[in-house]
Amino acid sequence: MLESWTDGPTKSAILDFVGRVTADGPDFVSPEARVAVFDNDGTLWCEKPMYIQLDFLLRRFKEQAEATPSLRDQQPYKAAYSGDLQWLGDAVTKHYQGDDTDLKPLMGAILRAHHEITVEEHAGRVNAFFADARHPTLGRAYTSCGYQPMVDLLRYLEANGFTNYIVSGGGRDFMRPVTSALYGIPPERVVGSSVGLVYRDGHLYTTDQPEFLDDGPIKPVRLWSRIGRRPIFAAGNSNGDIEMLEFTDGFRLLILHDDADREFDYTAGAERSLKQAATDDWTVVSMKNDWTTVFSG
Amino acid sequence: MLESWTDGPTKSAILDFVGRVTADGPDFVSPEARVAVFDNDGTLWCEKPMYIQLDFLLRRFKEQAEATPSLRDQQPYKAAYSGDLQWLGDAVTKHYQGDDTDLKPLMGAILRAHHEITVEEHAGRVNAFFADARHPTLGRAYTSCGYQPMVDLLRYLEANGFTNYIVSGGGRDFMRPVTSALYGIPPERVVGSSVGLVYRDGHLYTTDQPEFLDDGPIKPVRLWSRIGRRPIFAAGNSNGDIEMLEFTDGFRLLILHDDADREFDYTAGAERSLKQAATDDWTVVSMKNDWTTVFSG
Repeated sequence: MLESWTDGPTKSAILDFVGRVTADGPDFVSPEARVAVFDNDGTLWCEKPMYIQLDFLLRRFKEQAEATPSLRDQQPYKAAYSGDLQWLGDAVTKHYQGDDTDLKPLMGAILRAHHEITVEEHAGRVNAFFADARHPTLGRAYTSCGYQPMVDLLRYLEANGFTNYIVSGGGRDFMRPVTSALYGIPPERVVGSSVGLVYRDGHLYTTDQPEFLDDGPIKPVRLWSRIGRRPIFAAGNSNGDIEMLEFTDGFRLLILHDDADREFDYTAGAERSLKQAATDDWTVVSMKNDWTTVFSG
Repeated sequence: MLESWTDGPTKSAILDFVGRVTADGPDFVSPEARVAVFDNDGTLWCEKPMYIQLDFLLRRFKEQAEATPSLRDQQPYKAAYSGDLQWLGDAVTKHYQGDDTDLKPLMGAILRAHHEITVEEHAGRVNAFFADARHPTLGRAYTSCGYQPMVDLLRYLEANGFTNYIVSGGGRDFMRPVTSALYGIPPERVVGSSVGLVYRDGHLYTTDQPEFLDDGPIKPVRLWSRIGRRPIFAAGNSNGDIEMLEFTDGFRLLILHDDADREFDYTAGAERSLKQAATDDWTVVSMKNDWTTVFSG
């Protein structure tokens, strides 16, 4: 259990917590209430140099710009068409720092990227992407960009009667086709952002209207809607996870990306969460020191 | 299995379907895809003379009218204060017949009935209601108003590897405190209507804004959001269940309330669904003929 975690205070804190809630005693929690929630980007899989979903969308923006030349002068199609990954990554980082100037046109384009198709057709596009897309710098398939220590943690919690959920700002229906294979988490336990869907003649179609942006203070709302229980274990890595961690009554874990050799080294977008981890005694995981391996597969 | 179902074509149709999807052959469905969805009011428990949740709300309207006399001249507080159940029941039936005149003020009052409390306080009010509220005419506690044959069906499906969900127009957080005891369905598998929630300082608070009305064409949208799979078994009893049944790729069951002696005899609000059951070959359950007992407990 937890084979890819280094022996030390972080691993011990996890083992200690799970030991207490599963053993007879004052901290015992019945199995049906052992709910664990995990952010996805930067917590279960790599989010740099940009969210994996942004690569999926980028390829679609490029297709759209190829089909419609007038789009090539507008962001984010301009960045997509010219291969400017930096613009896209910065748009998101700036969002977590409170500046949504670039996020707004990006969100509009995201909403229009895959609209007016059935949910099954959408899953088909996602599967086609993951079938051959590779991480731009790590030299591995995106389906091998999950963190092995987190997969070990999911299995360890399951073995101790926990039920694991993903609660991510990422697209719900973008994650679902691959979370079973990557993490052993089935579609019904994936909570995420979504466009609105409409029902017509036996089918559900995507629209270009937002339904949820499952981030920040919306994360506890969405997880309550889905689960109806307060989690007792939560893991995140950014400012967008703060409220989910606060809402959790139990163990809070924050991943610190400090491993430039094996993954990436950054705190942009995580400034407030790291500060709160220090004051509220959340457990901070150093990728560099606490993990013996980083990637699965 | 299915002990409280009368031997005959309805029971045989269920047994045949479950046999086919669980046995090797062309109709086999893997266990993780064996998703069954159930409407609640009129499908799993009694909805007459009015929805059980309306009684819960009615008591709250009465409290509010007692506290604020000016409310006593306005509907639905007037009906609640004077004990006029007919007005409330009619408001809902008229909705399913396309007339929302009375539903609008009722919905406004429903939204204001339990706002600005935490989700845990809301669950406390629900539990207090079910601890002593009784059905007005059947002479039994509301917690004994579930249908025994449907409980048998839930257990039968589970025993065959199905996962059961409630997908109801009723309030998600009204049902959740009692569905485990009544039906063996835990909170995380209850999909329903809800007011919006807001996160503040570690807690989720109810607002007076609608979030979802999980009925009609919204049912497939909400069940997809929750489950991410198309059901292969669905049960309902009214026009509000049509789209959920259409979206289901497999067995569709519609409860016909034709048992005035043991329950109620009505088709109001189910006209279109009964017509479609006939043309689309959905299985119609006659409470009178197909069930040996009606109520659990």
